[in-house]
Amino acid sequence: MVDLHEKKAPHQVVIVGGGFGGLYTAKTLAKANVSVTLIDKRNFHLFQPLLYQVATGTLSPGDISSPLRAVFSKSKNTQVLLGEVKDINPKAQHVILDDKVVPYDTLIVATGANHSYFGKDHWKDLAPGLKTVEDAIEMRRRIFGAFEAAEKETDPEKRRAWLTFVIVGGGPTGVELAGAIAELAYKTLKEDFRSIDTSETKILLLQGGDRILPHIAPELSQVAAESLQKLGAIIQTKTRVTNIENDIVTFKNGDEVKEIPSKTILWAAGVKASPMGEVLAERTGVECDHAGRVIVEPDLTVRGYKNIFVVGDLGNFSHQNGKPLPGVAPVATQQGEYVAKLIKKRLKGQTLPEFRYNDVGSLAMIGQNLAVVDLGLIKLQGFIAWVFWLLIHIYFLIEFDTKLLVVFQWAWNYITRNRRSRLITGREAFVEPKTVNQQ
Amino acid sequence: MVDLHEKKAPHQVVIVGGGFGGLYTAKTLAKANVSVTLIDKRNFHLFQPLLYQVATGTLSPGDISSPLRAVFSKSKNTQVLLGEVKDINPKAQHVILDDKVVPYDTLIVATGANHSYFGKDHWKDLAPGLKTVEDAIEMRRRIFGAFEAAEKETDPEKRRAWLTFVIVGGGPTGVELAGAIAELAYKTLKEDFRSIDTSETKILLLQGGDRILPHIAPELSQVAAESLQKLGAIIQTKTRVTNIENDIVTFKNGDEVKEIPSKTILWAAGVKASPMGEVLAERTGVECDHAGRVIVEPDLTVRGYKNIFVVGDLGNFSHQNGKPLPGVAPVATQQGEYVAKLIKKRLKGQTLPEFRYNDVGSLAMIGQNLAVVDLGLIKLQGFIAWVFWLLIHIYFLIEFDTKLLVVFQWAWNYITRNRRSRLITGREAFVEPKTVNQQ
Repeated sequence: MVDLHEKKAPHQVVIVGGGFGGLYTAKTLAKANVSVTLIDKRNFHLFQPLLYQVATGTLSPGDISSPLRAVFSKSKNTQVLLGEVKDINPKAQHVILDDKVVPYDTLIVATGANHSYFGKDHWKDLAPGLKTVEDAIEMRRRIFGAFEAAEKETDPEKRRAWLTFVIVGGGPTGVELAGAIAELAYKTLKEDFRSIDTSETKILLLQGGDRILPHIAPELSQVAAESLQKLGAIIQTKTRVTNIENDIVTFKNGDEVKEIPSKTILWAAGVKASPMGEVLAERTGVECDHAGRVIVEPDLTVRGYKNIFVVGDLGNFSHQNGKPLPGVAPVATQQGEYVAKLIKKRLKGQTLPEFRYNDVGSLAMIGQNLAVVDLGLIKLQGFIAWVFWLLIHIYFLIEFDTKLLVVFQWAWNYITRNRRSRLITGREAFVEPKTVNQQ
Repeated sequence: MVDLHEKKAPHQVVIVGGGFGGLYTAKTLAKANVSVTLIDKRNFHLFQPLLYQVATGTLSPGDISSPLRAVFSKSKNTQVLLGEVKDINPKAQHVILDDKVVPYDTLIVATGANHSYFGKDHWKDLAPGLKTVEDAIEMRRRIFGAFEAAEKETDPEKRRAWLTFVIVGGGPTGVELAGAIAELAYKTLKEDFRSIDTSETKILLLQGGDRILPHIAPELSQVAAESLQKLGAIIQTKTRVTNIENDIVTFKNGDEVKEIPSKTILWAAGVKASPMGEVLAERTGVECDHAGRVIVEPDLTVRGYKNIFVVGDLGNFSHQNGKPLPGVAPVATQQGEYVAKLIKKRLKGQTLPEFRYNDVGSLAMIGQNLAVVDLGLIKLQGFIAWVFWLLIHIYFLIEFDTKLLVVFQWAWNYITRNRRSRLITGREAFVEPKTVNQQ
């Protein structure tokens, strides 16, 4: 039955995923004459680039999360829906949730990616990654729990294993984790224990390629490596993990095989697209790459479906320089904005030139007053890079919220080495961090 | 074998529990010529009076926690031990942990209390209490999850049940929860939903006695009730819960029996001593009251054991006015300080007069600019009480840490109605909050 009094329904845009890609698509559509439904499993957007600071006890999860409803409180054309999309029907033009079917005119899939364990999925429990708030809390529990266990341990060999941290992956997350744990062990926690000397902590950063931070210029990557080593971390490049078992990490450097006993192994390597990639492949026939990422068209659509877009880490966009764009926030953000603008153009019967990523540069924090920033022509290091890193993050955090205070807090904690947020939670009692978290 | 070069070992003080009682005992002993071991299941002291703000999304757990090791970092005579005491041997003078036996010369037991479900322990899952960080996160998940579920629900009756919050217990925690949920529903979240009108939320505060906040003066209790009602909450005094089943709370007011469908029932009633009370009773023969609290001597010792003290909520101290002192932070704090001073005196062969509680007054926060403060002669209400409440909490938070900034953040969030910390976490996907948390 058609209600004749009803106005023509606006164009229905459905966005799956509230990460950087989905969020910026929705934000850019906030004032358009479309009806937007943003679907996410979680009720908050997570500022993932700072997740390592939750894992190492500087920030609380709430400090880097924005409730999606609060972000879109004033955007009356936007509805936030809490739920998980299980399937897509591109013919009927709807997405399927557990308890609901949501129709769309245009669909944006932005469900991101996880770490890849290179086929060894059982390593996930032995060497947790860092993608969600729960991951960060679990990592925090293991890191601080390791020092606690070392304090109680009387066997020197086992104690050494508790004080050995192995980080797999030398990208920004791995480097930032290594730097933060080094500062913890060699500075923040130095006075806190009575039986152990935390300066005996060993931090090993394993990188498959021939240098850490491969996305930035080689000279900065060198600076980063030197800074990390000065902090006390050990870097092993051209190194692949071949086994993790019984608290021993086995890794291979060329023909040389080494073993190191460690109770805390943290994973920051590899890319594996979220399961929506597979769903899209099955339902639309689109091709995926080896990491399960959807190979998108130059306008970010899925081949054969002009009204289905993939933005952010879930997509493989290789039209710019032959290799996929990196899975970083600026790519997702720009893609989200592009898609939103294209939708608005299309509603006027117009179109846009194909997507181009404007490389804004890369940056990584190593420690207090230590960062590297690669803006192409301009390269920064040391204190000035650190300030730049801080300003960039302030700028993006402010975008969402009145978070100025949070950044002040962060800077304050950082300068005072305050690790207020180093709670070991998730269990009633303290249990050896080795055990897999039941959360 | 006696090592003749070894100095005489200092007096061994073992403190079980890092709440207000245990913490202040240890702090007051920080410079004494004793060796202190502080044992706690958790690695942080929790500022419980603000826990309701975590449950309602204003603060993060890290904001109200101080890592025990950081608190005692500079107290070289104090060792923090993470673990759970399972048993006590008063003859051999040691406490027994899972993996360790710790000897003592003087023992302080300060393990606190939990809520009592008045024999209906299966209500715990249906109506969670608020004592730990995990409790607060679970409560937060249920409160914010209820609004989410209501937004998705199409059946008006079920939707009403999602938008009905029942709080059992009209003490400070119950009142503060009711006030905070009222502000959430009627103010903070007002613009955030599209299908529901959060101002239709019903908040019911059930109190067994004839007035809320029975510990403060009747006129202030009246002011608090009026303020809460003005905010939109409904108060039912002289009311006891008789059943919780199938999302229906049954309660009795005199002979009148009422039922109300509610998906979110929060428990803030009753006192039940922690299990250490039972252990002490069994091992020392000391008497416990109906709530399992240890009946202590005038100097806070356990009858017959001059070197075992009980401080804080675990104890029943009735020597002052015939009824037990309330289970609040100032009592625990003063008792901890008293015991520490008594230990120091005893080491000099002296003693102290029996413990006297210096009643510093009671206060409760109701909402923005709304609090009640009862200092005996001075009684405050409204904005001035709110400022006083804030200053008192700033003062105590600063004691532990450079938390000034946290309080600023809190005040800032409060004034801007920012609920940044309203994450629904603990599970990968959103699940109807009804289900018992697996954490």
